[in-house]
Amino acid sequence: MTWLEQIKWDLDGLVPAIAQERGSGKILMMAWMNSEALTLTRQTGHAVYWSRSRKKLWHKGEESGNQQVVHAIRLDCDGDVVLLEVEQKGGIACHTGRHNCFYRELQDDQWREILPVLKDPKQIYK
Amino acid sequence: MTWLEQIKWDLDGLVPAIAQERGSGKILMMAWMNSEALTLTRQTGHAVYWSRSRKKLWHKGEESGNQQVVHAIRLDCDGDVVLLEVEQKGGIACHTGRHNCFYRELQDDQWREILPVLKDPKQIYK
Repeated sequence: MTWLEQIKWDLDGLVPAIAQERGSGKILMMAWMNSEALTLTRQTGHAVYWSRSRKKLWHKGEESGNQQVVHAIRLDCDGDVVLLEVEQKGGIACHTGRHNCFYRELQDDQWREILPVLKDPKQIYK
Repeated sequence: MTWLEQIKWDLDGLVPAIAQERGSGKILMMAWMNSEALTLTRQTGHAVYWSRSRKKLWHKGEESGNQQVVHAIRLDCDGDVVLLEVEQKGGIACHTGRHNCFYRELQDDQWREILPVLKDPKQIYK
């Protein structure tokens, strides 16, 4: 079996892919990949995901310039989750203009924002 | 809306939950939670997942003793992924006896094991 075949794709042909920032260790985001996205990620060295909402390949940073340079690709014990070690160009992974997507934390039974907006999304996506 | 209602559960009523080790920042595992699992996690301070294979609640560490003490619960921008900051009891998150589940790395188009087995699973699950 090839390395791609060893992955347990779900019924939609996808796996969750977690992007972790090299150095800081912070989790930037979690998105989904199909076989083509992971192959392209491997070939280009830049993270390519599958957008479930737009139903097409999503070259991360294609609009914003905030690409993710992939340094390592890991697979979990069950073979159904991928972990990417990436360098986040521009220091912004989230479409809201924050460093990463996990900017809400549960405090007193409410989701509180704990990360600042570094750049106005209107400036990111023109 | 309550904090639970603000989460975008998938069609099966689940969300992916990533467990990240406090301090080291290492990703320990990714599993799934339903509303009850996340509520119990919140109430008990210990990670509770939903086992899709066994179709029941999975109190992490119930057999192994390797519980996860939850220090923070975060939610991503789309509201469909949860991130837990945890203290991993026993230093072993993976059922294979390794520190974490992401012990395979893609090298030369093969998945190579990059983490040692710290404890024989037969000793963990008696």
